[in-house]
Amino acid sequence: MAVYTEVADEDLTEFSAQFDLGEVLSCKGIAEGVENSNFQLVTEKGSYILTLYEKRVNPDDLPFFLGLIDHLAANGVPCPQPIRTLNGEVLKELSGKPAAVVTFLSGLWPRHIHTYHTAEVGRALAEMHVAGADYKLTRANALDVTSWRVLLGQCEGRGDEVIAGITAELTADLDDLEANWPGDLPRGVIHGDLFPDNVFFRGEGLSGLIDFYFACNDVLAYDIGVCLNAWCFEADGSFNVTKAKKMLRGYTKVRALSADELAALPLLARGAAMRFLLTRLYDWLNTPEGALVTPKDPREYLHKLRFHRSVSGPAAYGLE
Amino acid sequence: MAVYTEVADEDLTEFSAQFDLGEVLSCKGIAEGVENSNFQLVTEKGSYILTLYEKRVNPDDLPFFLGLIDHLAANGVPCPQPIRTLNGEVLKELSGKPAAVVTFLSGLWPRHIHTYHTAEVGRALAEMHVAGADYKLTRANALDVTSWRVLLGQCEGRGDEVIAGITAELTADLDDLEANWPGDLPRGVIHGDLFPDNVFFRGEGLSGLIDFYFACNDVLAYDIGVCLNAWCFEADGSFNVTKAKKMLRGYTKVRALSADELAALPLLARGAAMRFLLTRLYDWLNTPEGALVTPKDPREYLHKLRFHRSVSGPAAYGLE
Repeated sequence: MAVYTEVADEDLTEFSAQFDLGEVLSCKGIAEGVENSNFQLVTEKGSYILTLYEKRVNPDDLPFFLGLIDHLAANGVPCPQPIRTLNGEVLKELSGKPAAVVTFLSGLWPRHIHTYHTAEVGRALAEMHVAGADYKLTRANALDVTSWRVLLGQCEGRGDEVIAGITAELTADLDDLEANWPGDLPRGVIHGDLFPDNVFFRGEGLSGLIDFYFACNDVLAYDIGVCLNAWCFEADGSFNVTKAKKMLRGYTKVRALSADELAALPLLARGAAMRFLLTRLYDWLNTPEGALVTPKDPREYLHKLRFHRSVSGPAAYGLE
Repeated sequence: MAVYTEVADEDLTEFSAQFDLGEVLSCKGIAEGVENSNFQLVTEKGSYILTLYEKRVNPDDLPFFLGLIDHLAANGVPCPQPIRTLNGEVLKELSGKPAAVVTFLSGLWPRHIHTYHTAEVGRALAEMHVAGADYKLTRANALDVTSWRVLLGQCEGRGDEVIAGITAELTADLDDLEANWPGDLPRGVIHGDLFPDNVFFRGEGLSGLIDFYFACNDVLAYDIGVCLNAWCFEADGSFNVTKAKKMLRGYTKVRALSADELAALPLLARGAAMRFLLTRLYDWLNTPEGALVTPKDPREYLHKLRFHRSVSGPAAYGLE
């Protein structure tokens, strides 16, 4: 939970006057979120999210992110749409930070995952992949398969302080992943971080996708791997094949998966587990005591990685 | 900044169904606030604040607090009004904590104080004092003059680690305060904590008073002392007599101050400085490293206490 930058009322009034928002009625820092400072902004015109981009986001990437949600929202994806200033700009500055205002999405993110959630997430993910196809800007995935060995190296063998033997185990996995990573699967814009806290529901219907700050161009089916990991494991570590099946069905109703994509799913899901395992391991080793944000336990993702390594094929995900 | 308790979407849906609020459209934890967990709750019927009461609030005090804002709001004070359940209750339970829903107040709290702010605060404070006169419940001030020597004792002489000589200096002040504390001034319900972050403005007009969790029965003019300290000193430590004058004028237009109340102001303001100095000193010495909330520097209030000790009479506050 974090708001890193305080916004003075006078600065906010001056900032908001650049938009056609009317009087600011309230502006409260939102406790959730770890990368940026977010505020729920209420004006005479309605509710918005005000985001101040903090140091973990590269300002050069902001045109890609803001342009992407603008493009996706215009193409029917339920994501925040940037609000333009009277001069037509979407990126401004507030309290010394790059800042943007986007539309507010209704909904609650699910704490306990049901199969209707995964069916909706699969569908929405595919719709995002389809809608992103004609987005003009591109952004390389800074956390793609080529980055993982570097990330493991940055842990300097200290991973074994957290989980004995992990450095050797992951090195062998990296050999596998790098040797077999598919080079010719369909690519496009992926979300890259579609965890439950980034997906809103009203009742059983999906009402919003948020937090596109890991979005980039990569293998589309890799994004499914991210979601299988984020949505289809139970708290006890078991894999819920029904949730996975519903997710894949939801996805393929919108965008068909080729035989090659299906065959690659175990490897892609294993790679997705590697990516989150490594960033969590790095953060675990490098978060100072007393930091505002508590690092997440990397063990959860080692377990998921091992699961995908063990499966014999995509049938493990409920595919017939 | 803090949200101490997470609220699961299913629990929230079940909780909100006890009220006539319609569907919950969103619920976001608010980063501000240190005592309780607050959420901005948006439903089909409007915006509300959902509060979960954490361990620093005594549950036995909640009927006093909730009854007070219900009474004050009904009498025209712009404060949050508790929303009743379909059964007429204002205090329920959510995520294992006592919980209440109150109306949402528009406005921003001022980061830089102007004289129009202090004039409005003076007026609103007096209106609250008048409106509270016929409130039936009572609550003793747990932080009144009789508690301060105990608080200093709980610092176990370690105050001198923070400010050399402070234990002896405050002991002499306590001798003075206890010997001369006025026993016969008008009493009533005071806010007790009316700092700028508890007062909302729209433009130059006051739109809301919040956070009544230190409200209690005590000398009314003592509440003015709290506000003189919270609103009328500049960042460089200087006392802005114009802000004080405007505050007192705003107050006395609504509720006249007797000669005895005026004469007692320096002592009351000094006592108010003592109260915040001591709780800040205690928190400074007892906040664990890595706590979510950063303790406030007690030195600021030592400076204010010395100011009030030095003045020759209430004319120092701009009274003619």
